[in-house]
Amino acid sequence: MKKPLILVTNDDGITAPGLRALIRFMKEIGDVIVVAPDSPQSGMGHAITIDSTLYSTKMKVNIDDGATAEYSCSGTPADCVKLGLQVLLERRPDICVSGINHGSNSSINVIYSGTMSAAIEAGIEGIPAIGFSLCDYSWNADFESSGRTVKRIVREALENGIPKGVVLNVNIPKLKGESFNGIKICRQARANWKEKFDKRTNPMGKDYYWLTGEFELLDKGEDTDEWALSNGYVSVVPTQFDLTAHHAIQHINNWNLHEY
Amino acid sequence: MKKPLILVTNDDGITAPGLRALIRFMKEIGDVIVVAPDSPQSGMGHAITIDSTLYSTKMKVNIDDGATAEYSCSGTPADCVKLGLQVLLERRPDICVSGINHGSNSSINVIYSGTMSAAIEAGIEGIPAIGFSLCDYSWNADFESSGRTVKRIVREALENGIPKGVVLNVNIPKLKGESFNGIKICRQARANWKEKFDKRTNPMGKDYYWLTGEFELLDKGEDTDEWALSNGYVSVVPTQFDLTAHHAIQHINNWNLHEY
Repeated sequence: MKKPLILVTNDDGITAPGLRALIRFMKEIGDVIVVAPDSPQSGMGHAITIDSTLYSTKMKVNIDDGATAEYSCSGTPADCVKLGLQVLLERRPDICVSGINHGSNSSINVIYSGTMSAAIEAGIEGIPAIGFSLCDYSWNADFESSGRTVKRIVREALENGIPKGVVLNVNIPKLKGESFNGIKICRQARANWKEKFDKRTNPMGKDYYWLTGEFELLDKGEDTDEWALSNGYVSVVPTQFDLTAHHAIQHINNWNLHEY
Repeated sequence: MKKPLILVTNDDGITAPGLRALIRFMKEIGDVIVVAPDSPQSGMGHAITIDSTLYSTKMKVNIDDGATAEYSCSGTPADCVKLGLQVLLERRPDICVSGINHGSNSSINVIYSGTMSAAIEAGIEGIPAIGFSLCDYSWNADFESSGRTVKRIVREALENGIPKGVVLNVNIPKLKGESFNGIKICRQARANWKEKFDKRTNPMGKDYYWLTGEFELLDKGEDTDEWALSNGYVSVVPTQFDLTAHHAIQHINNWNLHEY
């Protein structure tokens, strides 16, 4: 059987330890091409570069030790996927994996996530795609212990296919000694961030702000990603980019909008 | 009855004609506070500023001719909403309106839209929110003829409420002489962009790319926003930020992931 072609990207940038770990894991499964941002792009949501130029640089890689080819790109994670698919890759990849992100992309974080925007961009193009995140923000996070889980999910996705219009949002809890309790297929928990803006004054006397905040879980369900993660499970949320709230169409049809 | 407080924002920036028109329309309904980006932010998706500083400047406005207060912000549309709600507004607004965008945010464009990210951010905070877009990219687009539609939808939203977890994505077709055929409540059409990268060489001899593309409609349904717009209707898509693909949970539960 021909080896699958795997497009690897992320939002923390091409030098991030989480990306390097993901490349190593994917090399055990297929041929790996990397197209990743040349600088960190966390919090970029689904941004694309439409009013500026995009640069891409082919990196020198040791074939025995890294991917088949690696490209850095001056754009966002979504740009990396678009440029990879249209320009850099010689054939359509069998799967696109994004990450491993340094920090959680569970619940409402999916909306702000560059890691997931890359996966969603691939999904829009009809390519099976998965975003992986490790719930540990430290640069020295232990990615190795995620390897078994990551490879298992990718192998199952290649074997079974991912339904059209769906990408997977996988979050991996931080290990505290023991191993994971397993993998749970979940829904996105309802949550938001309670922002706190830290107001400061610059040397020229002008006020500015740093965005900080506290995560607020608004959901007691035991079928959510947050529940899974806080109970030692890896969470897998099938995630869609058809944002239609079908259940609300009837409500809004009752508004007085029709006699125009 | 107390006048409603209306937070107005956009992604084309505080000087954009579409924003100025929206302020005028909203002044007929309530008290208006503007928090908008100090520069264009199109294509920013749901980006937020987490590794940089945010500046906000209170603009001098003529109360008779403009909003009660206007603030420009150095961040993204989502930043504007966060900063507005937490720092700049004295009370919680009754509604947040974003736009009027210069150009369509129908179908898959919602994913890349700064206009809609502002509305979604307000929705996450539990505030009724609507994004408005005019399907005309020209800076001299005729926003005035949208006034009746925009005011009607906002008044209905204030009166009836928008279901929790839902924001409205309103697109207005470009008028060709006649008036609109009416307003349709729709689902998001399935579509994508066929990217074409325009490759050029800079004066230093390095290659770069411009992202261009062609819109590709993949959906023949007559209940979609694209169908409504091309048939002279204003489209209203109830849009959610719970991205869970509930229908796919069962499929993925059948994968071999459970014996861990």
